[in-house]
Amino acid sequence: MSEFVWQARVYWEDTDAGGVVYYANYLRFLERARSEWLRAKGWSQAQLQAEAGVVFTVVSLQANYRRAARLDDLLSISCEARTDGGASVWFGQTVRRGAPDGELLLDAEVRVACVSVDGFKPRRLPPELLKEFA
Amino acid sequence: MSEFVWQARVYWEDTDAGGVVYYANYLRFLERARSEWLRAKGWSQAQLQAEAGVVFTVVSLQANYRRAARLDDLLSISCEARTDGGASVWFGQTVRRGAPDGELLLDAEVRVACVSVDGFKPRRLPPELLKEFA
Amino acid sequence: MSEFVWQARVYWEDTDAGGVVYYANYLRFLERARSEWLRAKGWSQAQLQAEAGVVFTVVSLQANYRRAARLDDLLSISCEARTDGGASVWFGQTVRRGAPDGELLLDAEVRVACVSVDGFKPRRLPPELLKEFA
Amino acid sequence: MSEFVWQARVYWEDTDAGGVVYYANYLRFLERARSEWLRAKGWSQAQLQAEAGVVFTVVSLQANYRRAARLDDLLSISCEARTDGGASVWFGQTVRRGAPDGELLLDAEVRVACVSVDGFKPRRLPPELLKEFA
Repeated sequence: MSEFVWQARVYWEDTDAGGVVYYANYLRFLERARSEWLRAKGWSQAQLQAEAGVVFTVVSLQANYRRAARLDDLLSISCEARTDGGASVWFGQTVRRGAPDGELLLDAEVRVACVSVDGFKPRRLPPELLKEFA
Repeated sequence: MSEFVWQARVYWEDTDAGGVVYYANYLRFLERARSEWLRAKGWSQAQLQAEAGVVFTVVSLQANYRRAARLDDLLSISCEARTDGGASVWFGQTVRRGAPDGELLLDAEVRVACVSVDGFKPRRLPPELLKEFA
Repeated sequence: MSEFVWQARVYWEDTDAGGVVYYANYLRFLERARSEWLRAKGWSQAQLQAEAGVVFTVVSLQANYRRAARLDDLLSISCEARTDGGASVWFGQTVRRGAPDGELLLDAEVRVACVSVDGFKPRRLPPELLKEFA
Repeated sequence: MSEFVWQARVYWEDTDAGGVVYYANYLRFLERARSEWLRAKGWSQAQLQAEAGVVFTVVSLQANYRRAARLDDLLSISCEARTDGGASVWFGQTVRRGAPDGELLLDAEVRVACVSVDGFKPRRLPPELLKEFA
C-alpha cells in the first residue's frame, strides 16, 4: 500500500464568503485524487462503467478540518487505498498546503462501495483492479 | 406570456471569497426558476424524460451582472418563456434582491433546446407543454 | 433539544453523471438546514458576524450515505443541536426523501466551532444564542 | 494579443444527471483559465487584492454551448484578452475537447471590470498589468 498524491489549485469557485474553501468543496478535491489514483492504475470511471459494469459509490466518510485552504493555494491531496473483502475500498486521505509534506489542512477516511451500474447492487471489484491491492 | 417568479435564499455554498455570490452560481438560481416554472405547468424533468423521452439543454446564454447578491439575501428569480417553432424555448430571466420588484441584480436570456434523451436530437416539445405557449 | 426540519428540492446542479446527488452536495443541504435553524432562532450569519464578531466553522463531520437522492426529489433535512462548553455546537442531522418521516438517505454528525471573525480564535457563542440550548 | 490555453479534467463534481457537464460549471472552467492567464503574467488574485487593492468582477457574459463535455474528458480552455480604456478586460474564450485544436464545445465572451476591493468602484488596471496588453 503506497501513497498517491494529486495536486490541485484553489480557485474562486472553491471559496466562500468566509474567505476560505467551503467545507463541502474539500470533498471535491478528495474525489479528484481518488479518480486520479484510479486513472494511474489504468482505469477511467467511464471504462469501469462500460467494461466492468460497475461504479464506485461513497458509503461513509469522516473528515477533520484542521486549517483553512485559501484562494490561490496549491493543494496536495493524498490517497491511500485498502480493500476488505473485495467489494469495498477504504481510502485514507489528506489535504495539505503546498508540497506533499506541507501543512495539514484536512484528513479524512472515505469508504467506497463497488456497485453494479444498473441496480446499484454490491459487486466485487474487477479482478485486474483487485490485484493492485495485493 | 406571463411572468413566473421563484424565490431562493443565498447560502455559504453560493458565495465566494469576494464576499458575494460566485458568478457561475447565478446560473444555478436561473435554472431552479426554470425547473419550477416547468413544475408549475405540471411537468417534472424526470417525467419529461420518462414520458416524453426528451430533455432540455441550454444552447446559449447572455447575462448582465448589475449588482452583487450577498450571503443571507432572499432572491426573486423571474422567468418568462417564449417558443419559436416548438423545438426550442427562449427564457428572459431576472434575479432581484428581496421582493419580485426589488433591486435588479442580474438579467439574462437563456435559449434552451428540446432534445431526445437518447442521441440528443432536436425534438418538438410535447404537445401538452407546447400549448402552454399559445 | 428539539428537532428542526428544513425542506429543499434536488435540482440538476445537485446531481452527477451517476444520476444521483453528488456526495459532496449533501453537505450543502446540511448547511442550509443549519443556517435556517439559526435563522429560526432569530440570527442570520451576517448578523452573527457584524454584531457578535463570530462565525461558525466546521471542525469535523461524519456521514453515512444510506440511499441516493435523485433529481426532483423533495428532501427533509433535520437538525438537532447540542453544545458542550459553549464554544462549539454538535449537530445531529438527517436527510430524508419527502416528508420528515420519509426514507432515510443520509445521517451525519457535524461539529462546528464558534470563532472570531478576525483571527479564527475560539469564542463562546453569544449569550442570547447560548441560552437556546439550556 | 496571443492565446493562452489551460487544461482541466472533467470530474464527477462537474457533471449532472444528464451525463454531461452541468451548464453553469463551464463558467468555472472559464474562470480557472482566466486566473491562470493572470498567474502566467505574474499576478495572483490575492496579490492583486493586497498590492493593487483591486479585484476583477464579471460584468457580462455570452456563451454558446456547441457540444457536451463528459466525465473524464480533458478540456483545453483558451483565453485571449483585450482591454478598452484600461478599466475593463474583454476575454474571448473557448472550451475544446482534448488538445487545444480539439472539438469545439463552447465559445464565450466575458467582460470583466477592475474594481476597488473596498467599495467596488471602477479602477484602472495596475500599470504593470496594463502594459501586457500593449
